[in-house]
Amino acid sequence: MEKIPRPVIRRLVVYYRCLERMKGEGKEYTSSKELARRLGIKACQIRKDLSYFGGFGKRGVGYKVENLRERLEEILGIGQKWRAVVIGAGNLGKAIAGHKPLQQQGFEIVGMFDTDGRKIGKKFGNLEIMHMSDLKKFVEENDVKIAILCVPADSAQDAAKAVEEAGVGGILNFSARVIKVSIPVENVDFTASLKSLAFQIIKRKGKA
Amino acid sequence: MEKIPRPVIRRLVVYYRCLERMKGEGKEYTSSKELARRLGIKACQIRKDLSYFGGFGKRGVGYKVENLRERLEEILGIGQKWRAVVIGAGNLGKAIAGHKPLQQQGFEIVGMFDTDGRKIGKKFGNLEIMHMSDLKKFVEENDVKIAILCVPADSAQDAAKAVEEAGVGGILNFSARVIKVSIPVENVDFTASLKSLAFQIIKRKGKA
Repeated sequence: MEKIPRPVIRRLVVYYRCLERMKGEGKEYTSSKELARRLGIKACQIRKDLSYFGGFGKRGVGYKVENLRERLEEILGIGQKWRAVVIGAGNLGKAIAGHKPLQQQGFEIVGMFDTDGRKIGKKFGNLEIMHMSDLKKFVEENDVKIAILCVPADSAQDAAKAVEEAGVGGILNFSARVIKVSIPVENVDFTASLKSLAFQIIKRKGKA
Repeated sequence: MEKIPRPVIRRLVVYYRCLERMKGEGKEYTSSKELARRLGIKACQIRKDLSYFGGFGKRGVGYKVENLRERLEEILGIGQKWRAVVIGAGNLGKAIAGHKPLQQQGFEIVGMFDTDGRKIGKKFGNLEIMHMSDLKKFVEENDVKIAILCVPADSAQDAAKAVEEAGVGGILNFSARVIKVSIPVENVDFTASLKSLAFQIIKRKGKA
């Protein structure tokens, strides 16, 4: 399979979600045009994205909702269960650990880690907060594939290194700092999203 | 100014952050090559992104760190202060409201809203949780420009409509649901980021 750009993967996830909703509505067929209307993404973009994985649709008929949904599920590894740990037991870590949609989407938070002695041993829901020095053992014993990094920016690189050394497969990074590791990283940077939003509000006012 | 694609804006924010760190390190000059190395973005991409706003650099000399930082600050409206409210006083809303880097980056959370009667009137830090029916009045009186949507997916569209009607300038949407409003929206969808990460981990294992 040729290399798939990340923005394409992100959009596939969006298509998958939309197809799940369509399935729930009892729809049997859809089209790139309908997906485009629902999602605010151009139809030609949707067709191009799907073409990375071979032809799905029939000209004039469109896509069978369930077929396309299943195929995307397979491509994206969504059928799989993913065991994850949260690094950093602050407000954000707790919010992520308690975020219900994660579980529904196949991501199970099985552990929570911190370095603050006052937090270690305390419970959050069903999770006991553990010390980072126990991470490697925990990851090995519990087949943890993903670490969600919710630590302050200054601790991010050290925590990321520890995660990599523990044998975790990849990092979801909330820390607002670029981290350097050799495993895959996805950054969730909402202050950057806020700045991008602010820029759009300024431009819009300029026009009005 | 020609229309700037959103991914460019997001990268400008990343460049801005890097320049802030360079300034902190006492660096006077930098180059697209150095930025590229630090950020893992191709140098030609960086030069192209900056060229949207006219020429900054000198061939063979590069960019003056402080000049470029100031210019990006101006372009991105970063000098400005932005007043924001959090909609949804659950774990996630509280994490966002308590997220220190926001304040440092010029975003001040001035109010928190919910529809759950048991939460209304309670305090979170310095913020009193208010009812959504008071949003419009609050936005007008406090010059609120941004709403951060931290409600469950099923409430997202209604909440977004209320935000738009209250006269807020834009929405940062954490709700994992596409919302339809005529003001700017930035989506922070970390379950999508997790799926994208999972896909990268699968592909990597395939190669190993």
